[in-house]
Amino acid sequence: MIRIIQYGLGPIGLESARTILEKSGSGRLELVGAVDIDPSKVGRDLGELLGSSKPMGIVVTDDLDRLLADERPDVVLHTTSSFLAGVRDQLLACVRAGAHVISSTEELFFPFDRHPELAAELHQAAEDNGVVILGTGVNPGFAMDTLALMATGVCTDVSAIHVRRVVDAGKRRLPLQRKIGVGLEPAAFEEKKKTGTFGHVGLRESLLFVADGLGWQLDRTEETLEPVIAQADMTTAHLSVKKGQVAGLAHHISGFVAEKAVLTLELNMYAGADDPVDAIHVEGTPPIDLVIHGGIFGDTATVGALTNAIPLVLRTRPGLRTMKDLPVPRVFLSTNG
Amino acid sequence: MIRIIQYGLGPIGLESARTILEKSGSGRLELVGAVDIDPSKVGRDLGELLGSSKPMGIVVTDDLDRLLADERPDVVLHTTSSFLAGVRDQLLACVRAGAHVISSTEELFFPFDRHPELAAELHQAAEDNGVVILGTGVNPGFAMDTLALMATGVCTDVSAIHVRRVVDAGKRRLPLQRKIGVGLEPAAFEEKKKTGTFGHVGLRESLLFVADGLGWQLDRTEETLEPVIAQADMTTAHLSVKKGQVAGLAHHISGFVAEKAVLTLELNMYAGADDPVDAIHVEGTPPIDLVIHGGIFGDTATVGALTNAIPLVLRTRPGLRTMKDLPVPRVFLSTNG
Repeated sequence: MIRIIQYGLGPIGLESARTILEKSGSGRLELVGAVDIDPSKVGRDLGELLGSSKPMGIVVTDDLDRLLADERPDVVLHTTSSFLAGVRDQLLACVRAGAHVISSTEELFFPFDRHPELAAELHQAAEDNGVVILGTGVNPGFAMDTLALMATGVCTDVSAIHVRRVVDAGKRRLPLQRKIGVGLEPAAFEEKKKTGTFGHVGLRESLLFVADGLGWQLDRTEETLEPVIAQADMTTAHLSVKKGQVAGLAHHISGFVAEKAVLTLELNMYAGADDPVDAIHVEGTPPIDLVIHGGIFGDTATVGALTNAIPLVLRTRPGLRTMKDLPVPRVFLSTNG
Repeated sequence: MIRIIQYGLGPIGLESARTILEKSGSGRLELVGAVDIDPSKVGRDLGELLGSSKPMGIVVTDDLDRLLADERPDVVLHTTSSFLAGVRDQLLACVRAGAHVISSTEELFFPFDRHPELAAELHQAAEDNGVVILGTGVNPGFAMDTLALMATGVCTDVSAIHVRRVVDAGKRRLPLQRKIGVGLEPAAFEEKKKTGTFGHVGLRESLLFVADGLGWQLDRTEETLEPVIAQADMTTAHLSVKKGQVAGLAHHISGFVAEKAVLTLELNMYAGADDPVDAIHVEGTPPIDLVIHGGIFGDTATVGALTNAIPLVLRTRPGLRTMKDLPVPRVFLSTNG
């Protein structure tokens, strides 16, 4: 029986908790606690937050240390923030309590470039406590990186990889719409861009993960982040956007070797995108032209990535690990199981 | 430096040896021997067999045991036969010499159903000698199984998976064309079918690998093997086919749970197929509609699957393992490395 705590109860965290509860009928895992700092959630029954009519006996707490000590979880599913520096103490608390951590923190997906010292500290703590720390999700975590790596798995040679993801942000959760600027005036988009913490987080991590997985040394990278402007008024599930306002973003990054763009990742994420897709083109022997028609729906897939990693981290050598250290991902405890 | 022996010098084995030689400039690996029993190859320089004008100092031998003892390889790339019973002694000899084995033997990809006792014997021998035995390739090994498993990696639930591979067999190596009956009269196809060793080998292994990877218990399976008849005269690189003769085969298998076909694998492999493709449809949350346009070209991809497994088996726990025990596959030592 795998004992699990859900840490962070935003839209992704709530769906993650719901998914664990649905799978607990298998008798293989059990949700033993839920943590959030939001005063409007602390002290309430998780069932209530999930819209259930009956309480489930798990009361949301903001006292992580006490919950860890009381419940001794095997795994913490961590969905609190995109940025690594701010979650350092959260991760270390879980690890020191002997729990594996599977986190949606985008910067944790491949932290060795942006946060080398913090990555080393987390790795040491994980090793010392015999547990795994993993950053994963759909993007970063799968669509633009792990799947791209896997697409080269039967090639005898590869000279370049080009990845393109188009997402209809109008169908995504509100926090994501805000993160990418849906409904902003173009000038406000430019102002927010200057903060350095705006937009999609993790594209650089995806690029460096793929390069590292292939053993490629990039000479340099080029990154651009531009608004996509609405061509007409529109309304998403959460926000309304007027013609001329920001509908979303185009975030592109390239990695170069000897002046050739050997890795290109193009993320176009905006409300009203009418051709969502995930496409991976491998220039290699043989060439691979992989397309996921309609794209991978991100909010559900992020939860899938997190929960499917549970059995895999249990089989992985302790330490700070990435998706390329784990066995091939696959759905965990599905209907026909 | 990883020391490698190529065992079996048919078309796949020769390309495998060529690929290792091309990658040896990296200084990370080295081809230290080549084995075949064909009297027309034994005693000849490998460079000559590869069409090179200068000898490379590797003389083909039929004395496996002596080569193993003399060269102490780290890894043997094994490409001699599709059937496991016939290669048992070959695999055990390599393992007992302390070498990891990566094999294209189709029945070895998931041997636990068809050959449970032999699988147990191989597993024990591999564990005892601290090495890994792995069966892999493009099919079985990747296109219809490992990739299908990975396509579910971000799903929170999956109710069914449908896989379809269409191959233009006219572009493939001669042994493969013969194995699938290209150029036979329909009556001869039916006769050969009765032998039980004719046609594509490994479709059942792919099905059971996916079911096992998902933890699904199938109630029963249904398998069909039918000839595809040429609608016009045609000529492949190796054979000519007259209208009315066999152009190839349609090999389908389904796995059922409670009378629902939850896993279906359709392999259509014939000369003149004008729409080669690999398609994986996951009925799940979210649904995944993955297509490799043009399909994965098999002869090259099988060599890629074998050689790319080299660094992965070195990181895997000793024993008889399958692709779902290894880290995510990716190209090894490619051009931009």
